[in-house]
Amino acid sequence: MHAETIDLYPTRHTGKPEWQDRMDPVIHSSDPPIPPLSPEMVEDFGEKGYMVLPELYNTAEVAVFRAEIDRIRTDPSVRSSEKTICEPGSESVRSVFAIHRDNTLFSRVARDKRIAGIARYLLGGDVYIHQSRLNFKPGFTGKEFYWHSDFETWHAEDGMPRMRALSCSILLTRNDVSNGPLMLIPGSHRHFISCVGKTPENHYRESLKKQEYGVPDHKSLVDLSDRYGIDTVTGPPGTAVFFDCNIMHGSNSNITPLPRVNLFYVFNQTGNIVEDFLLTRHPRPDFIAERTNFAPLDIQREQFD
Amino acid sequence: MHAETIDLYPTRHTGKPEWQDRMDPVIHSSDPPIPPLSPEMVEDFGEKGYMVLPELYNTAEVAVFRAEIDRIRTDPSVRSSEKTICEPGSESVRSVFAIHRDNTLFSRVARDKRIAGIARYLLGGDVYIHQSRLNFKPGFTGKEFYWHSDFETWHAEDGMPRMRALSCSILLTRNDVSNGPLMLIPGSHRHFISCVGKTPENHYRESLKKQEYGVPDHKSLVDLSDRYGIDTVTGPPGTAVFFDCNIMHGSNSNITPLPRVNLFYVFNQTGNIVEDFLLTRHPRPDFIAERTNFAPLDIQREQFD
Repeated sequence: MHAETIDLYPTRHTGKPEWQDRMDPVIHSSDPPIPPLSPEMVEDFGEKGYMVLPELYNTAEVAVFRAEIDRIRTDPSVRSSEKTICEPGSESVRSVFAIHRDNTLFSRVARDKRIAGIARYLLGGDVYIHQSRLNFKPGFTGKEFYWHSDFETWHAEDGMPRMRALSCSILLTRNDVSNGPLMLIPGSHRHFISCVGKTPENHYRESLKKQEYGVPDHKSLVDLSDRYGIDTVTGPPGTAVFFDCNIMHGSNSNITPLPRVNLFYVFNQTGNIVEDFLLTRHPRPDFIAERTNFAPLDIQREQFD
Repeated sequence: MHAETIDLYPTRHTGKPEWQDRMDPVIHSSDPPIPPLSPEMVEDFGEKGYMVLPELYNTAEVAVFRAEIDRIRTDPSVRSSEKTICEPGSESVRSVFAIHRDNTLFSRVARDKRIAGIARYLLGGDVYIHQSRLNFKPGFTGKEFYWHSDFETWHAEDGMPRMRALSCSILLTRNDVSNGPLMLIPGSHRHFISCVGKTPENHYRESLKKQEYGVPDHKSLVDLSDRYGIDTVTGPPGTAVFFDCNIMHGSNSNITPLPRVNLFYVFNQTGNIVEDFLLTRHPRPDFIAERTNFAPLDIQREQFD
């Protein structure tokens, strides 16, 4: 499908971090925006690299999602699956991957027009799921997730060639300033900051718990936050957050009693499928990064209540 | 000075946590408030258990404090002192204790009318410093500090008899929602929640890094946050936060590049000095909890710019 053989975003090759400008658009479509997007919202996404849509899913739908997640988290076959990642030093389920494949309900969510339609519009063409997961950040002991650009990881570890992907997170609990919400550096998506150090083999299990590779340097983070500041995403259950694949983001720990639960889908444009020549290591497992099925999502309006 | 021999707030004696009502006032004075306090502010402190006074110290004064802290943190004799606590797993200075004794500038701050005068008013009489420290929560790696009531610790580990003490924290960096600010449960100061488990000897060094004893149970925290919610203290440098000795508080980690630096003074009323019979272990060192010098502070208006 691709004839490219040039790595436009080299990373993990040199001993020092390097900045380069983004070589891809953020908004890949020139058509008029589809509802509920307005031209202003699209422009804002282009500038900031993220947008928040409160109450994209209603209370009844959130309840349906939560019930299914509670079932999944206590399902012994899920707990013992390699697709399940636990909290560091605990048996508590933190993430379950590939929910768009393994779970009937969450595969319907993946193709729901409310999120997949927006992804298709912003990415300017058909999309498929590169990665999906449910995240459960427990109360009291939820750990921080350090700053990173998803694209840097997907590029170096999965072979994603270009910046033509985005994440959609559907919040299933209230996210407020105190329970370790998503923090983003608005505007950071316009720079690609290479990371230092070779990628070790098979480190994905640890990196999903605690990142040590693909970690941006302190000076770059100081420069980014001085220049752009740090935004915090808060909202009621049912809120959806869309963010560009290259925006710098992370989250602090959560000592409050309030867990943070969300559904997480990565949409990639079908012209941007992973390429082996870009890999800095053996590819991650298929449940973390799609490597075989690039069929476009059959997007339709779904309803879950 | 005291003839009391009854422990009004038993803790760390039983196998299950117990709630009891506070047996002491929050506002110990019935005089009209002193400036800058208004009757409304005092009433609010009584209700919530804390108050925030933005810009109690001006920019120039903050700069003087910061310069002195930078000097202290790199002073080899301070770094090697037992009064200095480092970050877990790091040589980075987190806290330096007894700054009201060892440091000329910060002993003047301790008796400054702007903070000590307010403490004397709220506590209804002469005050002395039970504990002081500077806190440095670094950027990128600042760790969380779990929920606790200071009074529970001071009662069990220092022998402080009654709830007639308060903390004043002077913020020396901007505290915003993203850099691990102080979280408080407003109203929680009206309940005393006993903690479970015997206090081990000499655990103070560890507990100042990461608390494992004097830790409230999950159910009590859920009940408190359901009932009262969680407030987050933010403000520019120079802001002072006063909070009651028994309010439940803590903070999340800080992955942002922005460090959090503050000065911290605990004022205790001179009628409420520590009593050995209340101790659940050998007393903590004198630099953590004053045990000998209960002389009232000679409060005066100081200026530092």
